[in-house]
Amino acid sequence: MLDVSTPSFLVDRAIVVRNCEGMRAKARASGVAFRPHVKTHKTVEIGRLQHGGTLGPITVSTLAEAEYFARDGFRDITYAVPIATTRDKIERAATLASRIDRLSVLIDSEPALRALEAYSASHGVTFDVFLKVDCGYHRAGVDPESPDSVRLALAIARSEALRFQGLLTHAGHSYHARDVEEIRRVAAEEVGSLTRFRALLASEGLEDALRSIGSTPTTSVVERFDECDEVRPGNYVFFDAMQATIGSCALSDVAVSVLTTVVGSYPERGAIIVDAGALALSKDAGPDHVDPQFGYGVVCDLDLQPLPMRIVALSQEHGKIAAQTHVPVGTRLRIIPNHSCLTAAMYDVFQIVDRGRVMDRWKPVRGW
Amino acid sequence: MLDVSTPSFLVDRAIVVRNCEGMRAKARASGVAFRPHVKTHKTVEIGRLQHGGTLGPITVSTLAEAEYFARDGFRDITYAVPIATTRDKIERAATLASRIDRLSVLIDSEPALRALEAYSASHGVTFDVFLKVDCGYHRAGVDPESPDSVRLALAIARSEALRFQGLLTHAGHSYHARDVEEIRRVAAEEVGSLTRFRALLASEGLEDALRSIGSTPTTSVVERFDECDEVRPGNYVFFDAMQATIGSCALSDVAVSVLTTVVGSYPERGAIIVDAGALALSKDAGPDHVDPQFGYGVVCDLDLQPLPMRIVALSQEHGKIAAQTHVPVGTRLRIIPNHSCLTAAMYDVFQIVDRGRVMDRWKPVRGW
Repeated sequence: MLDVSTPSFLVDRAIVVRNCEGMRAKARASGVAFRPHVKTHKTVEIGRLQHGGTLGPITVSTLAEAEYFARDGFRDITYAVPIATTRDKIERAATLASRIDRLSVLIDSEPALRALEAYSASHGVTFDVFLKVDCGYHRAGVDPESPDSVRLALAIARSEALRFQGLLTHAGHSYHARDVEEIRRVAAEEVGSLTRFRALLASEGLEDALRSIGSTPTTSVVERFDECDEVRPGNYVFFDAMQATIGSCALSDVAVSVLTTVVGSYPERGAIIVDAGALALSKDAGPDHVDPQFGYGVVCDLDLQPLPMRIVALSQEHGKIAAQTHVPVGTRLRIIPNHSCLTAAMYDVFQIVDRGRVMDRWKPVRGW
Repeated sequence: MLDVSTPSFLVDRAIVVRNCEGMRAKARASGVAFRPHVKTHKTVEIGRLQHGGTLGPITVSTLAEAEYFARDGFRDITYAVPIATTRDKIERAATLASRIDRLSVLIDSEPALRALEAYSASHGVTFDVFLKVDCGYHRAGVDPESPDSVRLALAIARSEALRFQGLLTHAGHSYHARDVEEIRRVAAEEVGSLTRFRALLASEGLEDALRSIGSTPTTSVVERFDECDEVRPGNYVFFDAMQATIGSCALSDVAVSVLTTVVGSYPERGAIIVDAGALALSKDAGPDHVDPQFGYGVVCDLDLQPLPMRIVALSQEHGKIAAQTHVPVGTRLRIIPNHSCLTAAMYDVFQIVDRGRVMDRWKPVRGW
């Protein structure tokens, strides 16, 4: 049982399937397009599970992911980070676009639009383009209330070099919420900002711009998807300690954990050391806005029952856990990661667990 | 020039050579053994540079590193994390030990000692073992002032299953220093604790136990190595923003940077977005004990001149930089990472830069 070395990244297949089915069913019942993000897991196996075992539209965070999933047969991909307007990136996007049904890229500025148009003029290609909109996260995206944004949307829609795909936003500030009520407010802001912006565009003659939304908190807490046309959650396949803390899911919905071994026990200083350090967990501080002392993950026994221990420090290959009880050297524990996207990316291989046994090993794509 | 995609991990070969030579020369001049750590870079190329272009004794943080370097000809390796006393790890260590001149492992408890003895009894192997000592970091290691620690050292030295290699400590708390003076105090504590412990052992008849020390801050700020027999620094090959801030080095001694492209510019909210996010930089908070607003690295131009910008947030593939000036989309920047060990580990390949050009690509070993 769990015959793997430590540290290992364990994925509970049944929970992944349940998480995938729940979100997919909600999208279907809501009558919206479903384009899940694959950046959390980066595996073609889970990409298929997100679509009930088949191929379907996906969202990616790197061109490397886009190319990898395209090789496996995924033919409709949105690259949901503003594309770097350097020659190499535009060229890679154009090459991939020529091989699949659709590769949509994101822009949010006139210089980026001009860069795509210049490449189009010299290479005779047409780009599928979303306008990235800022719905309050203030990371990337245009201000949906600015006349400049309306002008940019119209310029994209009217450009002969581009096919306008619609409006895309990501309510990343939902991660900063403290509870479900706050997430619901962000969710309303997410769809509201796109809907209002779409109305501004309609008044300028650009009708029915597609509204693509998606963050795991906002898509998890709503009963159904309203005021949008497409949803793109990603983290929901795994969830994590962060999502369970802010209310996107229960701790029992988290599909992943890091298996670790106690390598040192120091009851005289109330600590144990495990072999899962910063390279096994990532140093994401998790929901420290809810609890500044949260630590670097939730320590559990092998059955994923939380233990009263806190991961107080991570160095490269050591995790330091404040433990009130003595835990013998050699004991195995499981740690629910703070941020499963970042933890998963630390591993070349995931151990796929089914009914308590490792039944497969899946390899995520890496790099950019 | 710098004809690589972003994000990329750039290694300035000339600075690495200079850093390697400086530390090696200091060890030689001090008459102590030099067993540099390879965990920061995990490449056999830099492992050789640490020994002036040849093979030599090294320190590793994982068995995967030990196996990888052994395949390249390194034959004297210390695995400097307390070994997990599970069957698979002990077996791997024993197998590797049989193939090279010496693989030393660390223990700091009687249960770990018994586990090695039990394996030895059933497999007829002898382990080379260091006793890990806590010199004030309070991570792993025995208390050097406790009679229990003396008893454990004697038990290791007298065990027929083991060859006692000596005392090993790591002053990781030097990373928490704020300046050179504080680092010097930690350095004195590091060697002092081993020297005093060795005297306790001598009074029990165990003479001349080897004292192995090493952290980049403590080994960087001292003029020469006194009161120790072996030094094991690792981060010094690259250094990073953390080391430059606390005084282990100058910023111009940092050999690595992450090349990134501006993908969004939002002067109205005083921010730019670059394509180096948490997976390109790691989320190590760096010297936030010196400056809580330090951010996730030092933003520089292509010539590594620091710019007045702060990396205020990292999501998976976005870095958000507070920028007072407009920076055009497509601009390339370089970021000196907070913690080069963790940032390097995010990359499958390092771009080796020499006189402004990428002249090679080196691949680090990954996993455990």
